[in-house]
Amino acid sequence: MNRNTRRIAIIGTGLVGSSCAYSIVNQGICEELALIDLNHERAVGEAMDLSHCINFTNTRTKVYAGTYEDCKDMDIVIITAGPAPKPGQSRLDTLGASAKVMESIVPSVMESGFDGIFLIASNPVDIITYQVWKLSGLPRNRVLGTGTSLDSSRLRTILSELLDVDPRSIQGYSLGEHGDSQMVAWSHVTVGGKPILQILEEQKERLGELDLDEIVEETAKAGWEIYKRKGTTYYGIGNALAYIARSIFNDDHCIIAVSAVLDGEYGEYEISTGVPAVVTRDGIKELVELNLTEAEENRFGKSNDILRDYMKTIGY
Amino acid sequence: MNRNTRRIAIIGTGLVGSSCAYSIVNQGICEELALIDLNHERAVGEAMDLSHCINFTNTRTKVYAGTYEDCKDMDIVIITAGPAPKPGQSRLDTLGASAKVMESIVPSVMESGFDGIFLIASNPVDIITYQVWKLSGLPRNRVLGTGTSLDSSRLRTILSELLDVDPRSIQGYSLGEHGDSQMVAWSHVTVGGKPILQILEEQKERLGELDLDEIVEETAKAGWEIYKRKGTTYYGIGNALAYIARSIFNDDHCIIAVSAVLDGEYGEYEISTGVPAVVTRDGIKELVELNLTEAEENRFGKSNDILRDYMKTIGY
Amino acid sequence: MNRNTRRIAIIGTGLVGSSCAYSIVNQGICEELALIDLNHERAVGEAMDLSHCINFTNTRTKVYAGTYEDCKDMDIVIITAGPAPKPGQSRLDTLGASAKVMESIVPSVMESGFDGIFLIASNPVDIITYQVWKLSGLPRNRVLGTGTSLDSSRLRTILSELLDVDPRSIQGYSLGEHGDSQMVAWSHVTVGGKPILQILEEQKERLGELDLDEIVEETAKAGWEIYKRKGTTYYGIGNALAYIARSIFNDDHCIIAVSAVLDGEYGEYEISTGVPAVVTRDGIKELVELNLTEAEENRFGKSNDILRDYMKTIGY
Amino acid sequence: MNRNTRRIAIIGTGLVGSSCAYSIVNQGICEELALIDLNHERAVGEAMDLSHCINFTNTRTKVYAGTYEDCKDMDIVIITAGPAPKPGQSRLDTLGASAKVMESIVPSVMESGFDGIFLIASNPVDIITYQVWKLSGLPRNRVLGTGTSLDSSRLRTILSELLDVDPRSIQGYSLGEHGDSQMVAWSHVTVGGKPILQILEEQKERLGELDLDEIVEETAKAGWEIYKRKGTTYYGIGNALAYIARSIFNDDHCIIAVSAVLDGEYGEYEISTGVPAVVTRDGIKELVELNLTEAEENRFGKSNDILRDYMKTIGY
Repeated sequence: MNRNTRRIAIIGTGLVGSSCAYSIVNQGICEELALIDLNHERAVGEAMDLSHCINFTNTRTKVYAGTYEDCKDMDIVIITAGPAPKPGQSRLDTLGASAKVMESIVPSVMESGFDGIFLIASNPVDIITYQVWKLSGLPRNRVLGTGTSLDSSRLRTILSELLDVDPRSIQGYSLGEHGDSQMVAWSHVTVGGKPILQILEEQKERLGELDLDEIVEETAKAGWEIYKRKGTTYYGIGNALAYIARSIFNDDHCIIAVSAVLDGEYGEYEISTGVPAVVTRDGIKELVELNLTEAEENRFGKSNDILRDYMKTIGY
Repeated sequence: MNRNTRRIAIIGTGLVGSSCAYSIVNQGICEELALIDLNHERAVGEAMDLSHCINFTNTRTKVYAGTYEDCKDMDIVIITAGPAPKPGQSRLDTLGASAKVMESIVPSVMESGFDGIFLIASNPVDIITYQVWKLSGLPRNRVLGTGTSLDSSRLRTILSELLDVDPRSIQGYSLGEHGDSQMVAWSHVTVGGKPILQILEEQKERLGELDLDEIVEETAKAGWEIYKRKGTTYYGIGNALAYIARSIFNDDHCIIAVSAVLDGEYGEYEISTGVPAVVTRDGIKELVELNLTEAEENRFGKSNDILRDYMKTIGY
Repeated sequence: MNRNTRRIAIIGTGLVGSSCAYSIVNQGICEELALIDLNHERAVGEAMDLSHCINFTNTRTKVYAGTYEDCKDMDIVIITAGPAPKPGQSRLDTLGASAKVMESIVPSVMESGFDGIFLIASNPVDIITYQVWKLSGLPRNRVLGTGTSLDSSRLRTILSELLDVDPRSIQGYSLGEHGDSQMVAWSHVTVGGKPILQILEEQKERLGELDLDEIVEETAKAGWEIYKRKGTTYYGIGNALAYIARSIFNDDHCIIAVSAVLDGEYGEYEISTGVPAVVTRDGIKELVELNLTEAEENRFGKSNDILRDYMKTIGY
Repeated sequence: MNRNTRRIAIIGTGLVGSSCAYSIVNQGICEELALIDLNHERAVGEAMDLSHCINFTNTRTKVYAGTYEDCKDMDIVIITAGPAPKPGQSRLDTLGASAKVMESIVPSVMESGFDGIFLIASNPVDIITYQVWKLSGLPRNRVLGTGTSLDSSRLRTILSELLDVDPRSIQGYSLGEHGDSQMVAWSHVTVGGKPILQILEEQKERLGELDLDEIVEETAKAGWEIYKRKGTTYYGIGNALAYIARSIFNDDHCIIAVSAVLDGEYGEYEISTGVPAVVTRDGIKELVELNLTEAEENRFGKSNDILRDYMKTIGY
């Protein structure tokens, strides 16, 4: 009799993994949280630090340093392991090293008998998500990456400051690579259901002439702006991971831009890239196909082409 | 030195008022909650019943039976007082009786020195909101009614079941009277930013030919369907009140369909009716003017005309 | 592959059952909530009213009117069905009628293949809990009643007002019958770990001479004070139910005073009565045996004797 | 008209300060959060990283990099600035450097016109709390340090694992220095209201003979065990800060072990040290004086003597 213990494992307890864990503990998202790291002692230290929070929160999450065998019973395995980009590198430059790490992690997880959902944050997240899907042999709905979820959040945060409106009253997504080539589906950005292109037109006087491409760039570069100031980024992505995990457990059917393996959607095959998806207890229930304008379609296609070029370097 | 005690008074502790109070206690929305009722002993009883919850929640809300004088220090005064419609009556039929109650409540509140926000649920809510605005002499941004917030929630719940998507991933509003004549701005209903009209077109095979008017009617009549089965409705509206109060305290700038006094927006003057509004710590920061289609505009106008007819009966 | 949908059924959708449901929805305690009532239409109405809250909360709980067959997959079945006491009646006076209702409910639930936890609020709750345990054939750890959980909360609320301290910083329990004969284990009431008897002694000047028996009576009679004013009570008990359900799902190992079937603890057998228990995902993990003073032991025994007398009337 | 915006400033955005900020954002504890750092760009980076979380949480907290002038309107100023101990150093060894930092921070905050509550985490926290009190000129109830709040949480976590009980069902505090010399008031540790010394006696067979001094040492050394494994600690302390801030805003009257300036309590004067305190919107409402055993009193006194010796080195 399994009485619904919600279980998550986080592989990689660097600042992204442990920020995600901290967010999970603060929000009480699951009852059991295993931290897995090559440096087991590091995982033990993080688990201790996180355990001392329990007394201050409203839900008792059991945090411990685990092993790959523990993945057997996990509902969700979050992968954050892999090298951070060095100064001057883009996320894509870490592909080779990250891919090697996955070759060791994913089979180890699968050998445990894991039958849950992979949630990937390791960069370059789109390609790594595809790789984990391939290595795991799981159905594609059960392997998803954070993709452009954080970028979409950044986009909404920027727009929310511009328009002085709650970001949760804004719908809109960054699509494509979680990286410099991502694009925004402006034709489908709405504020309280009203198209943003209309709003910008109407409020020209108040807002001035806005350069949408600059907003896209500001969105795509937000990570680097943080990187320049604190050497890395982890809170936004940690929160995105926690949010997606929460949506899975709650079976919310919420639409989130994640990195998903496409099989014909948007005319794309054999690639994982950022698109809006309905997230449920089974991972991705279905992808939302926006009717992009031709210009948007082109930019989305180019972003995917960049991903494909890099995918080749690791043999896909 | 006011260290930010968040205070709400609820006037009227029938099932709507006390459900709202219960929701506030469950969600920890404020620190002080005064219940005010002509039947003071009833308010004492409700306050006792609610106080015994404190030990089970994560926030300590002080609940007590109050008087109009207590309104002086309140951030928000919620009015739920007034007669419920009898079998066969519509919300509009209770206007005369409700209006009389307000004539006694609003001056009493204002005499206390109240300088906060009125949030109205008493029916017919649009007209009563207008009346409270007039009686209070407060600026129009600080008097708002629940309006079509609950109807919009019902609409999204219906659509969410139809489309199997989280209602929070749906944007869309019922506009006009919180009553039979309300309409839906279908041109601005979006799911993950995608227009619903497009979705219905694309998914014709799966969903069949949908009659949008039927959905509007199902939305507008949802209250009556509940009424038929349990004699009244209070949870949905209690939660809507708590949600709006929470948005005010959090200064969310969230867009919610509320009953707001129009002063030229949508070409309307001297009426309070359901429209999307940006809700902040100051009440209504601004109204969102959707670019309705001509047909939608007509229906919205007709709904307001019905309100106007009834307003005349109490001298506006 | 069961991906951890947390499921609760509530049997009986009067004000206690539906207040419990409202609290569950407000706090997002489970993903699926079935309402079961002889009056199925009433359950449908409540489910509709509750469904319209979903858009206003942070978790999507699916609420629907269910049947006994739905109990098969439930983690927790909450029973609130049964007659409310009439004016002048005590909770014990409703025993005969309540017991008859259980004879119909419990076998129907068990026939579904239910293999979860029964949580009982129907009065007289201690005897009904015992009866449900007998009828169900489940191990005793999986049948618990709200018992003195609400009384303990009332006690702490009273003390918290007296001492001006957060009720959550007070430990202490009412024991025995959820009714007039209950007693407080004063020897084990602590405030911040400090025995209350010591505090009262030290603060005599400030607090005056307190009559502890009066506090016990105020605790035991709190329900009636509410009853006198609003005709019934439901928020406190609804919240207690939600809190216990939440503790079960979270596997909190929290100590709560519940009605538990004793098998030698406190020297008692074949009775269900209010005692502190460690509540986990398996229901009751173990009972906490306080070292009562002789006087306390006597009062506890007397309370149990009263329960036993009534138990005989339904053949136990 | 101040409509209750809850505002916190955090001075020092190292890992402790920013973990605290992350916890505040995750739990929605305030509406405005200013990050202040000598390295302003670092604060800007942290604020950006934290801002991108907003879309994923249920409350909209405005996070920004601020300056000392912003402190004017703050309810709470949290200080986490100061050097971390180097390998081999104890918290006390950083006193000189920390004290110098405070001499610059505190007058700058006070010059802004700040009239709120100081909450200190900088180490050695007890002495720094005393220093901030002196420098600020604020009444003693409005300057508090994290003190032994985290140690008490660690103690309960250890006991909760030992006894398999929710830490929130355990009351008990570490007292004295937030450091090696702290002690546990074992005579006042209770589990569900039952004295732990009694429980250990009763459960000797199951638990074995426990060395309480070892548990105290494990508690006191928990920080170092984490330090050894991850080079520093920040989640536990970040959560303790968030918890205390939340209790202040909620006016909970919760009892928490904090570092408080004593003025005769426990026979001590002119020192700040870890003792249980009732925390309200005014900071510390009153201290809880436990009736320590003579042995406990001696250990508490010794811990304070150690603090006093170090206080002298900075001229107190």
